[in-house]
Amino acid sequence: MNHKLVYQNILTPLTFLKRSTITYPDKVAIVYGQQRLTYAQFAANVNRLASALRYAGLQQGDRVAFLSFNIPPLLEAHFAVPLAGGVLVSINVRLTSQEVTYILNQSGSKFLFVDRELAHLIQFDENSLETVKKIININDVEDSFPNENQDYQEFMQSGNPAPFPWVTQDEMETITINYTSGTTGHSKGVMYSHRGAYINSLGEIIEATLTSNSVYLWTLPMFHCNGWCFTWAVTAIGGTHICLRKFHPGKVWKLIQQEGVTHLNAAPVVLISLLNHPDCPQHLEQPLTIMTAGAPPSPTLIEKITNIGAKIIHTYGLTEVYGPYTVCEYQSNWNNLKIEQKAKLLARQGVPYVCGDSLRVVDQDMNDVPANGQTMGEVVMRGNMVMKGYYNDPEATERAFRGGWFHSGDLAVMHPDGYIEVRDRMKDIIITNGENVSSIEVEQCLYRHEAVLECAVIGIPHPKRGEVAKAFVTLKAGANVSADELIHFCRSQIAAFKCPTAVEFCSLPKTSTGKIQKYLLRAKEWAGYDKKIQGS
Amino acid sequence: MNHKLVYQNILTPLTFLKRSTITYPDKVAIVYGQQRLTYAQFAANVNRLASALRYAGLQQGDRVAFLSFNIPPLLEAHFAVPLAGGVLVSINVRLTSQEVTYILNQSGSKFLFVDRELAHLIQFDENSLETVKKIININDVEDSFPNENQDYQEFMQSGNPAPFPWVTQDEMETITINYTSGTTGHSKGVMYSHRGAYINSLGEIIEATLTSNSVYLWTLPMFHCNGWCFTWAVTAIGGTHICLRKFHPGKVWKLIQQEGVTHLNAAPVVLISLLNHPDCPQHLEQPLTIMTAGAPPSPTLIEKITNIGAKIIHTYGLTEVYGPYTVCEYQSNWNNLKIEQKAKLLARQGVPYVCGDSLRVVDQDMNDVPANGQTMGEVVMRGNMVMKGYYNDPEATERAFRGGWFHSGDLAVMHPDGYIEVRDRMKDIIITNGENVSSIEVEQCLYRHEAVLECAVIGIPHPKRGEVAKAFVTLKAGANVSADELIHFCRSQIAAFKCPTAVEFCSLPKTSTGKIQKYLLRAKEWAGYDKKIQGS
Repeated sequence: MNHKLVYQNILTPLTFLKRSTITYPDKVAIVYGQQRLTYAQFAANVNRLASALRYAGLQQGDRVAFLSFNIPPLLEAHFAVPLAGGVLVSINVRLTSQEVTYILNQSGSKFLFVDRELAHLIQFDENSLETVKKIININDVEDSFPNENQDYQEFMQSGNPAPFPWVTQDEMETITINYTSGTTGHSKGVMYSHRGAYINSLGEIIEATLTSNSVYLWTLPMFHCNGWCFTWAVTAIGGTHICLRKFHPGKVWKLIQQEGVTHLNAAPVVLISLLNHPDCPQHLEQPLTIMTAGAPPSPTLIEKITNIGAKIIHTYGLTEVYGPYTVCEYQSNWNNLKIEQKAKLLARQGVPYVCGDSLRVVDQDMNDVPANGQTMGEVVMRGNMVMKGYYNDPEATERAFRGGWFHSGDLAVMHPDGYIEVRDRMKDIIITNGENVSSIEVEQCLYRHEAVLECAVIGIPHPKRGEVAKAFVTLKAGANVSADELIHFCRSQIAAFKCPTAVEFCSLPKTSTGKIQKYLLRAKEWAGYDKKIQGS
Repeated sequence: MNHKLVYQNILTPLTFLKRSTITYPDKVAIVYGQQRLTYAQFAANVNRLASALRYAGLQQGDRVAFLSFNIPPLLEAHFAVPLAGGVLVSINVRLTSQEVTYILNQSGSKFLFVDRELAHLIQFDENSLETVKKIININDVEDSFPNENQDYQEFMQSGNPAPFPWVTQDEMETITINYTSGTTGHSKGVMYSHRGAYINSLGEIIEATLTSNSVYLWTLPMFHCNGWCFTWAVTAIGGTHICLRKFHPGKVWKLIQQEGVTHLNAAPVVLISLLNHPDCPQHLEQPLTIMTAGAPPSPTLIEKITNIGAKIIHTYGLTEVYGPYTVCEYQSNWNNLKIEQKAKLLARQGVPYVCGDSLRVVDQDMNDVPANGQTMGEVVMRGNMVMKGYYNDPEATERAFRGGWFHSGDLAVMHPDGYIEVRDRMKDIIITNGENVSSIEVEQCLYRHEAVLECAVIGIPHPKRGEVAKAFVTLKAGANVSADELIHFCRSQIAAFKCPTAVEFCSLPKTSTGKIQKYLLRAKEWAGYDKKIQGS
């Protein structure tokens, strides 16, 4: 007898839905507008989709692409595609048609599910798609682009809601491929394993303190690191998913109240728009935990969130580490600090998750930088929270994994208390007269000015100093401040050589996940120069 | 380059202490009387013990036995022994010298750490110990048995507090061996793996909702399933361990108040003594979560715990599944039920943990029994929460794992809502006139009588009916009731054939973990008969 069958089942998120369906068959698992699905219905849909895919010719390891907003079919696909033995490729819906084509071909996707509203993304020459055999339309909104593709509901009818046995035998098999939001050059396909997805999901349950009473609002796109693994984590704990097709601050506040939302995740820029919306309450009526990552939240933002009575959890990670890898764990001895000091400590990226195996900040020779809060080095990570590698790209994988560690490309300092603080993306650091200037430090200084809604600081060419800082600023509605006033404000707070020499008032270009696209600002400023303009 | 080093670290609880030491170096990790150890000190002690063991000749895979109460050295050993590459054998301190000798020899332990107060357990002929090379005395209390063995503090001085690199390369390696409390025949050594200990620890964090603010009181012996993995779980989350050398209800209530205890675990009989103690408050001043297992808590007990404002989590498991495997998940639609109805639902063993892969109730041919709440079958389990097998006992392992499932030996029914309810140990079921009577059902009936403090029901020989039920009852202080009155009370509640035909008032024999030793009661009643008297 093979005893391993008894004591070593594979680690896979597929067990989560199975367990929640046994435990909470009649509990609401998914809310979407008027639609309410119980866990039993959720599981039935998953079984239907999995079996329909198999009937339609899906073979083990085949990639299944989705172009979808945060609606139930995409959530269900997170279980159905791996259940059928496939690999889910959930594509960023804000990309261009060319970028989508590249991803479909690079991933070798066989099936493509596409929301009708996103049909413009697939209005390409049929010959450009090298591997897609079947396109299925998701008709979630009014049909604006009539076409010949099969309808999602019709496709689902070909499936069977009965329990579908899974085929995956190896926990290291790929469960999803997430394409990085790299916007220059081609994006890379980050491979997640069943085991990694399982462990990262448990990690999110623990760090976000999810329980079966949790009501999670889908403000974060599911195509972004599979929603930081919350697609699986919220299901594992038997919580309720509140789907949200598109982010709108007013709608978010309404759902928070209406559905009793307890948890949501979003990048700081998204939170800024939320907190500055007129519907933002003075004080929340019930507990709300907000996990943020993607950029360091400014002390001002942390203070605002705390003031309305929400709890903020600041995490840091990348697509390559299934979303967050570190968390700024709150220490009880911070209780007596003033809110500004506390916010400053909370704006740091922190320490590894309970499931994070190892985190270091290293110099170019892979030596740890001193834990002095000053010396910058690159953040490197390893363990079960790190991707398997880039799909069909051994060279990029080798580069990212050099020295036996995953290289984040982020520059940070290590504080004496063991917390890391990310100072910049390696490519965003400004080198002026040989001095390193953290663009984040300058931005956080600007955020302390009451007129500033959003800002981005980049290095621009300077004949003598190489680079100098320039700020791009969006002011709050009704606010008024001059460029000189802002520069003067910075000089009163940080060293003169770090301060912007120019300020431009404008709206900032952003990715779909709310990251400011500094490379676009740099491209404009460096036109005609030979500095390489890197992506984000 | 071996990329697995980057993305697939072994799952082991050793990472937990490493992470908590980085995150909470100055936080109190362990409280024991006046003693307070920070996480940095905890880790230093662990490194010291691990290195001392290596210097003293420990080789990878060697077994290290402990005979110790719930004091810091035993907690530290849960990390130090595996860190050194050894296997921890934490022995039940209520066993006899003969039983201890058997375990030391069967496990082939090389080192033995023994609390001076337990020195009587090792007053054996030196030749009876086949493998122990070194005995170290833990002088936690006054030295009552002077001897030649090395002192623990002296042994620790030979170690080094600096970080000690771990040697385990395979997550399936054995981390501990826990001997079952089987009291007739020889007890068996249940092997836990690093991977299993890691996953079960995360499972406990999730089910008990532990956070870094948790303060865990050690009412449950650490030698029992490694304290249901809370030795590792509380450390993983960065909580505080409150060590308690010996359970005493008054001391427990004092510590709950004094140290702000948020969590404790105990078998129902232990909880009964706690709730009936004069220091039990009318209402707790702060939240307290009590996890219970080992026997189904009576509805009366659940009601009492709820009334003082504590939260009860009812779990079920065995040594072979790292402690709890199922949890009676509370369903929000129980809110409106009367407390008796609610308590009845909560007394069921429930559904698998989030990390529990599969649970079934099966007949002798391994078919699932119908989910009707009536048909009894054996509880079988599998997955990462199940032991690797019995140490050096392939036959017992084969028997326990027959059909590809771990057989619990517990009889249960499956309710229509997917919750299991254990009706009896297979050997405790009473067969009267061919009818199965659950001894637990009769006991729960007796517990509803206000005079009953504790009780145990067994089958005794009967010339015509084969067996009939007999009750052994301990009354509450000052209470008074006759045998006839109790029998009459039962007849007013359950079918006559299930009711005891005799009642004996006495104190009940118990194991160190609070389980009532029915086999001792049976042995007396069946003396002279040829029915096999099985252990627990």
